[in-house]
Amino acid sequence: MVLASALQWIIPIAGIAAVAFALYLARDVLSRDKGTQAMQDVADTIREGADAFIKRQYTTIGLLALAGAVVIGIVIYLVETREVADVPDLAGAPIAVMTAIAFLVGAAASMASGIIGMYISVRSNVRAASAAQRSLVEAVQVAMRGGAVSGFLVVALSLLGVWGIFTAYSAFVGGVTVREAPFLIVGFGFGASFVALFAQLGGGIYTKAADVGSDLVGKVEAGIPEDDPRNAGVIADLVGDNVGDCAGRGADLFESTAAENIGAMILGVGAFLIAQAAGWPSPEAWIFFPLVVRGFGLLATIVAIFFVRGREDENPMNMLNRGYWVTTILSVVGLLITTNVMMNTADAVGANGIPAWVWFFFAGVVGLATSVAFVYITQYYTAGTFRPVREIAEASKTGPATNIISGTAVGFETTAVTAITIGIALFASHWLGQQANLVNAAGHDVGGIFGTAVATMGMLMTTAYILAMDTFGPITDNAGGIAEFSHAEAGAREITDRLDAVGNTTKALTKGYAIASASLAAFLLFSAYIDKVNLIIGNQIEAGTKTASDLLTAVNLADVSVFIAALIGAMLVYFFSSLAIRAVGTTAQSIIVEVRRQFREMPGIMDYTQRPDYARVVDITTRAALRQMVLPGVVAVATPILVGILLGHEAVAGLLMVGTIAGVLLATVLNNGGGAWDNAKKYIEAGHLVDADGKVLGKGTPAHAAAVVGDTVGDPFKDTAGPSLHVLVKLLATITLVLAPLFIR
Amino acid sequence: MVLASALQWIIPIAGIAAVAFALYLARDVLSRDKGTQAMQDVADTIREGADAFIKRQYTTIGLLALAGAVVIGIVIYLVETREVADVPDLAGAPIAVMTAIAFLVGAAASMASGIIGMYISVRSNVRAASAAQRSLVEAVQVAMRGGAVSGFLVVALSLLGVWGIFTAYSAFVGGVTVREAPFLIVGFGFGASFVALFAQLGGGIYTKAADVGSDLVGKVEAGIPEDDPRNAGVIADLVGDNVGDCAGRGADLFESTAAENIGAMILGVGAFLIAQAAGWPSPEAWIFFPLVVRGFGLLATIVAIFFVRGREDENPMNMLNRGYWVTTILSVVGLLITTNVMMNTADAVGANGIPAWVWFFFAGVVGLATSVAFVYITQYYTAGTFRPVREIAEASKTGPATNIISGTAVGFETTAVTAITIGIALFASHWLGQQANLVNAAGHDVGGIFGTAVATMGMLMTTAYILAMDTFGPITDNAGGIAEFSHAEAGAREITDRLDAVGNTTKALTKGYAIASASLAAFLLFSAYIDKVNLIIGNQIEAGTKTASDLLTAVNLADVSVFIAALIGAMLVYFFSSLAIRAVGTTAQSIIVEVRRQFREMPGIMDYTQRPDYARVVDITTRAALRQMVLPGVVAVATPILVGILLGHEAVAGLLMVGTIAGVLLATVLNNGGGAWDNAKKYIEAGHLVDADGKVLGKGTPAHAAAVVGDTVGDPFKDTAGPSLHVLVKLLATITLVLAPLFIR
Repeated sequence: MVLASALQWIIPIAGIAAVAFALYLARDVLSRDKGTQAMQDVADTIREGADAFIKRQYTTIGLLALAGAVVIGIVIYLVETREVADVPDLAGAPIAVMTAIAFLVGAAASMASGIIGMYISVRSNVRAASAAQRSLVEAVQVAMRGGAVSGFLVVALSLLGVWGIFTAYSAFVGGVTVREAPFLIVGFGFGASFVALFAQLGGGIYTKAADVGSDLVGKVEAGIPEDDPRNAGVIADLVGDNVGDCAGRGADLFESTAAENIGAMILGVGAFLIAQAAGWPSPEAWIFFPLVVRGFGLLATIVAIFFVRGREDENPMNMLNRGYWVTTILSVVGLLITTNVMMNTADAVGANGIPAWVWFFFAGVVGLATSVAFVYITQYYTAGTFRPVREIAEASKTGPATNIISGTAVGFETTAVTAITIGIALFASHWLGQQANLVNAAGHDVGGIFGTAVATMGMLMTTAYILAMDTFGPITDNAGGIAEFSHAEAGAREITDRLDAVGNTTKALTKGYAIASASLAAFLLFSAYIDKVNLIIGNQIEAGTKTASDLLTAVNLADVSVFIAALIGAMLVYFFSSLAIRAVGTTAQSIIVEVRRQFREMPGIMDYTQRPDYARVVDITTRAALRQMVLPGVVAVATPILVGILLGHEAVAGLLMVGTIAGVLLATVLNNGGGAWDNAKKYIEAGHLVDADGKVLGKGTPAHAAAVVGDTVGDPFKDTAGPSLHVLVKLLATITLVLAPLFIR
Repeated sequence: MVLASALQWIIPIAGIAAVAFALYLARDVLSRDKGTQAMQDVADTIREGADAFIKRQYTTIGLLALAGAVVIGIVIYLVETREVADVPDLAGAPIAVMTAIAFLVGAAASMASGIIGMYISVRSNVRAASAAQRSLVEAVQVAMRGGAVSGFLVVALSLLGVWGIFTAYSAFVGGVTVREAPFLIVGFGFGASFVALFAQLGGGIYTKAADVGSDLVGKVEAGIPEDDPRNAGVIADLVGDNVGDCAGRGADLFESTAAENIGAMILGVGAFLIAQAAGWPSPEAWIFFPLVVRGFGLLATIVAIFFVRGREDENPMNMLNRGYWVTTILSVVGLLITTNVMMNTADAVGANGIPAWVWFFFAGVVGLATSVAFVYITQYYTAGTFRPVREIAEASKTGPATNIISGTAVGFETTAVTAITIGIALFASHWLGQQANLVNAAGHDVGGIFGTAVATMGMLMTTAYILAMDTFGPITDNAGGIAEFSHAEAGAREITDRLDAVGNTTKALTKGYAIASASLAAFLLFSAYIDKVNLIIGNQIEAGTKTASDLLTAVNLADVSVFIAALIGAMLVYFFSSLAIRAVGTTAQSIIVEVRRQFREMPGIMDYTQRPDYARVVDITTRAALRQMVLPGVVAVATPILVGILLGHEAVAGLLMVGTIAGVLLATVLNNGGGAWDNAKKYIEAGHLVDADGKVLGKGTPAHAAAVVGDTVGDPFKDTAGPSLHVLVKLLATITLVLAPLFIR
């Protein structure tokens, strides 16, 4: 018992250690050599653009979040009367204020990690480029450390935020028991979702609009080379890489970890009640368990960063993989300690006389294994060394149409192994959890669902490392751009090219990881939703307004309302993607208009005597992207609310679950299809495609042109719609969780 | 009571009348002028190809069906022991034989209607071409009458088949009561599904492989014009039009009507029991009701055929619409009569004192209205006069990539109005049904579900007419090809061009209708599945091996197994489509190899002294397509069985329902996206696209080339994968219905 309580201190310790380590890494990176003056000039323009983006984007999101908090506070105040409150004593104003505060803290923490991550990312790129002049290993380390700043901050701020607000509410608000507190902090997850939606959607629209728009106005219209610095859109494009993969994915995974922590704590309440009734040593440990696991994950990642090293002639992917495996193995150890100490069931044992903690330990291992599986599945489907990408490259020989058809077939195909892996992970962790024999007073098994929660925790232990690898992507991508622009020596450019290729793989792989964790987190969140609905109905039963038969025991698909809601959930995913994809085209128009204006009104640009206004293009594009994200954003938020009000609390659960299934699969199709198209183009550019006579079909051939079409099609799929769907899936979960009282009839 | 029994005679009367009328139409069409010798020569080659296709395709499907019947018989014999049989007295051999026979009859009736429809279709084309030399109205009538042969046969054989086998089993097999008989004939629906899967999948692969393959080997490789008769693949392509839209869609809707009839009869058993208990005049009328409604639909369509007329200068679409509205209005009258006579609840009334039959009548009207809604929704999304197609055409200005992105966005968008319309139809018809106050002994409402069944019946009343319009498509398409090949006079070609454009619309519209009816039919079928499972568990409760708590009262998505099965159901839809799309590419290779061989070994082809071997190309392509359909076919059949065995009867219901939702939406995306791409190309070819200076961007421009890419991408989407998904959705339903005993634990 003492040990279990002591172990809870790992939460703030690990959180603060991770923040401190992030600061150390930031200092380390910033203190490094910034390279030649030419390099610094390019980097400065990127930084200038990024600053313009951050200012505009986060001011808008901040204002939206503020408005959101007020609206949510008012809605909760009006809706959450004593009759439908999860904690009746706090009904009305107290719970409204607490939810609004939690929402704001969640939003602020997510924004802070995004802003700081971006800040470091756009300063690491030039250091990585400079390091590439000297050493591959050093360049890898700079990029990885720069990326790790994001990774640590995202996970640590999410952990500290959840822990802080939980501690504050359970310690300082009168009458809140430890079993009620998890329900009071769901606003934190909703705030994180809200920011993630707009960060990912606005960022995704921005990045691809900049890509497409600058190509059209520069290469096609003005006839200047693709990455020519006279085209102000080019810098917007380089900024965009950081926006999508650093800020966007960071917010995405911030949300995953926050929502997963809160959801798992809510499920932990079920175990807490059993532990309390049975008199096991440390009941609250079941509620704090998810946070402790996360803390160990952070510590494991800190150690792993020092293992990112290798020989100069080594494949850089191996260096990153080395660190990943260290994180994974240390996480297993952390999991072992945590389950052993915190899941103390005294004399009670699970199936076959094996203690409960052992079963849960293995459930956590299932989660870690799922994470590893997804890393390799994504590589198979998007790397040029395997069948799918080669198939698309081959299909390019007969033109763009067959390239598109083949890529679509590959994208569709990837759902199979994704769904089966998630299915096995859920089934195995649920089964393992059931063996723990956690049965509540009503005779229902609680362990099974908790097993899936532990698997999700296991999976998310490596988040900080995965995010570091992800942000490695835009840093090396930018480093390549800087080396190119500044005409760096061939050796440096060869190194940045190699790193860029690795970065493409890590970016794809993070999406696979994000989607898998989103689906596990979602399953846990709708279990939490059911718990919350039943907590409220339970209160109503006590108040005599409802009977036990009103409890939500099943989300019955055979019920017409549930079925209709499910249909709408699956539709939402397509409709939302349609709006997101269309928004890219509309936003690209703004960039085209502005660059045209610069060419026209600043005649010195063309002969290099005048400097294009980079920041203005970024700002205009950002504003356009922010405007364009309103419609899909509103659709995403309004649909579950409308369906919940019209069809009730059981139906909205159907929307949530089937929307999650549909969203996970469509995101898989879009992400992997897009990644495969991208790499099929790279495969051809690398000269791997040959015709019947053995002649290489490289750049400039019709096959390459066809592959470029596929790559362009894949861009808004994999960088706008796909990642936005990850966020949508989790938003559905947190929105219904927060607004549950509104839907109960 | 007497009247209700008398009305049942409408079933055989309408069925036989429709067959007789189809024969009359066939005679009428065949007796018409076959046109010039040149026309007849071309038509003969198409016919020759079609005969080769029919022979190969239906021999294979027939053998597969025979094998399928044996396997199903054996499985049912082994599985359906007394303990898990729906009709315990017939457990083992009797039920195995009865299911196998029903399967074979369903398969044979579906095949027969497909073969005869194709037979007439490939003979109507030349008559329509010939009529176009004289009169637009006559050409429309010939094509529509030729198409109506298919329409009537499909619906009539399905009706007579279900009625015949039901009558035979309930009258001649000892101990079968009228309430048990509907469960015994589900094999008929499974047989129809089985044939439809292979007809649609094999046919869809064939038709697009012929299209793509003949283009590549002729236009690209040999450098001869696109529709040059020296290329034997061209005829395979013309044959393909009939294969997909006549035989394929015919089998698709045969299955819809058969499955809907059987499912509605099973649900009718619930109403039958209530009627019997309450002593209402004619309890069996509730079971026969769906068949009588279908009978009235056939009679309405017979009358409507005579309204397909108009002025020479009229838009042909108006003539077809005139007949469609006559069918719809007469169907409303038929529905009014049937509900009034057959739903006699004596003194019992529904909500607000309104008789039950009135509520159900309006539920049926909801179905008919849904059918009308889908006709217009499809037109909006796929016709050049509206925003979506114009948007794609505009996007073509910036190349193939933006064309594809825009088409994808449109395809995704179409799911919104589709899902909402289906949702409203289900909700309204369910609500109306609930008002009828049909409550069973256990206190459960039966009327709601039955209301959705009546809506499905209403929707499917117009099937024969819709199918006639659908087959109108390939007939006029072929007529256009014949007029072109035979260098018919300009006036005739102008008429066939106009008809061809209308045919494109009717083909698209039938797909919309098919998918909407598939989703309504599926909802009804999984209600029937639950009824069947509970019938079996009810028997087990009587036998004392189970208790009342084992009854399937909900398909609980929050259950891990159900959720996993649902995930797999949604994934199956993508994976199956991926295999179908890929099969097109592989099959196209066979046609290329054979045409190359002909060019090489028959040097006379090129200077027109030697006739290409058309039949051989068709046969080889057919064989290749049949081989390629094996893998997706096996996946479609095996997945529900495996999931059912591994995860149980509740989980497989989850697979079925979420698979249906996912299938309906993905089919909508593929069908409408494909249709919109096709028409965006036609829109540009018609000269509607202009650049910024007002210059027309027509054939030969880069914008047109970009639109051709979109059209080619859309081909396997809308003609192979999309329609095959309709069939997959229904196959999932019939397979689980037949094999339910296998899944019960």
